[in-house]
Amino acid sequence: MTKNTKVNAAILIIGNEILSGRTQDTNTSTIALWLNSIGVIVNEVRVIPDIEETIVETVNHLRKVNDYLFTTGGIGPTHDDITALSISKAFNIKYEIHKEAFKILEAYYKPGEFNEGRQKMIWMPENSRLILNPTSGAPGFNVENVFCLPGVPSILKSMLGGLQNRIVGGKPILSHTISLRTVESEIAKSLTDVQNNNKDLEIGSYPFFQAGKLGVSIVLRSEDQSKIDKCSNEILNFIDKKKIEVVDR
Amino acid sequence: MTKNTKVNAAILIIGNEILSGRTQDTNTSTIALWLNSIGVIVNEVRVIPDIEETIVETVNHLRKVNDYLFTTGGIGPTHDDITALSISKAFNIKYEIHKEAFKILEAYYKPGEFNEGRQKMIWMPENSRLILNPTSGAPGFNVENVFCLPGVPSILKSMLGGLQNRIVGGKPILSHTISLRTVESEIAKSLTDVQNNNKDLEIGSYPFFQAGKLGVSIVLRSEDQSKIDKCSNEILNFIDKKKIEVVDR
Repeated sequence: MTKNTKVNAAILIIGNEILSGRTQDTNTSTIALWLNSIGVIVNEVRVIPDIEETIVETVNHLRKVNDYLFTTGGIGPTHDDITALSISKAFNIKYEIHKEAFKILEAYYKPGEFNEGRQKMIWMPENSRLILNPTSGAPGFNVENVFCLPGVPSILKSMLGGLQNRIVGGKPILSHTISLRTVESEIAKSLTDVQNNNKDLEIGSYPFFQAGKLGVSIVLRSEDQSKIDKCSNEILNFIDKKKIEVVDR
Repeated sequence: MTKNTKVNAAILIIGNEILSGRTQDTNTSTIALWLNSIGVIVNEVRVIPDIEETIVETVNHLRKVNDYLFTTGGIGPTHDDITALSISKAFNIKYEIHKEAFKILEAYYKPGEFNEGRQKMIWMPENSRLILNPTSGAPGFNVENVFCLPGVPSILKSMLGGLQNRIVGGKPILSHTISLRTVESEIAKSLTDVQNNNKDLEIGSYPFFQAGKLGVSIVLRSEDQSKIDKCSNEILNFIDKKKIEVVDR
């Protein structure tokens, strides 16, 4: 099922470890690529600390101005995992034991291993829909348009597939990259002309260094393949005239 | 020079390529580690698209609620580089040719190479202070408490050193990591007790997978080494009693 209008989302990364620079976030890229493939555009990403008031305020803002909100982090068993409680407060609903999550984790762990720490992970906002976790048992949860995922990248990645049917996207966002052996300043003016000719298509220009050589990747993004093709031809035309080497297209 | 009160900053990543998932941001971690080392705490990170109105609004919010704001991206020569113009609009000041930047780039490029594209990079908000670029010539700029850096990670990294004297931080934020061969749920309760005993110190708990083995890193953060030492001892005490293997401390 797809919508005809544009569908957008925000990503909220909850975690002091990203803000301190200790850990590099990779979840943004994982979620964004997946959302693009099902026709959802990411409008904004925020990274905030493990502070309840900040989480509540930010969630309440982002869930209202976006079709979907994805959070990562803060759903484990330790004291700094406060996402589920904060989401309950954001929606002003009860924070309680989720019976289905209880059953899942009781079955997942060996007898005696479903200890107090692990039992924290079954406390969720009232009437949450679970997001199943094929990697390590403990599920994420979903309240209205908010989807709460863990921070560990490999676990998060394994949980996205199960969400596909709950997200109603627009047309998939298509992209095409043309990589050139040049520098941005050589093509800046011509590229501006092409952008002016193709206003409803997104053209990005990104310098790169690869195998010791400089280059520029031009990225075209649109929901409409024919617009990408037209624009791509206009770019290849001026590239040809300028005798710039095409590395990849 | 250091301040006695806490000093904080926000980081604003400007770029569609991060929101689309095509490029993974690494600048947050680079800037955050450097800021921590000079006593500045990162409160918030946002990633926004190359849209003038969004940049203006976000910059005006973040620069008012933080001591410092660092932006990355959008200061190159192409049509999608709109940071300098947007910052001028945010401060409601002129967008004009920066004479010093002109001189730097005129000297940097060979005769005839300082073309129209490159000349875009000398347009800046009125009275900007330059941020010198030892890697590729084109400087960043600084208006009041806002510091605008490029998006290319290696270039950004090379420019931070030159900023040191313009940022007045508090005491450096110290951190200590204890890595354990355990899972979070085994230590969650004891760690909560330690956090309750040490309320003004930040304790983070982060699961990791290394060489096929599970573990947990406990990260202690404070400006006060003696607080870190006290807390570290309390943790090692309960770890010892639980006979959990310490991988690194």
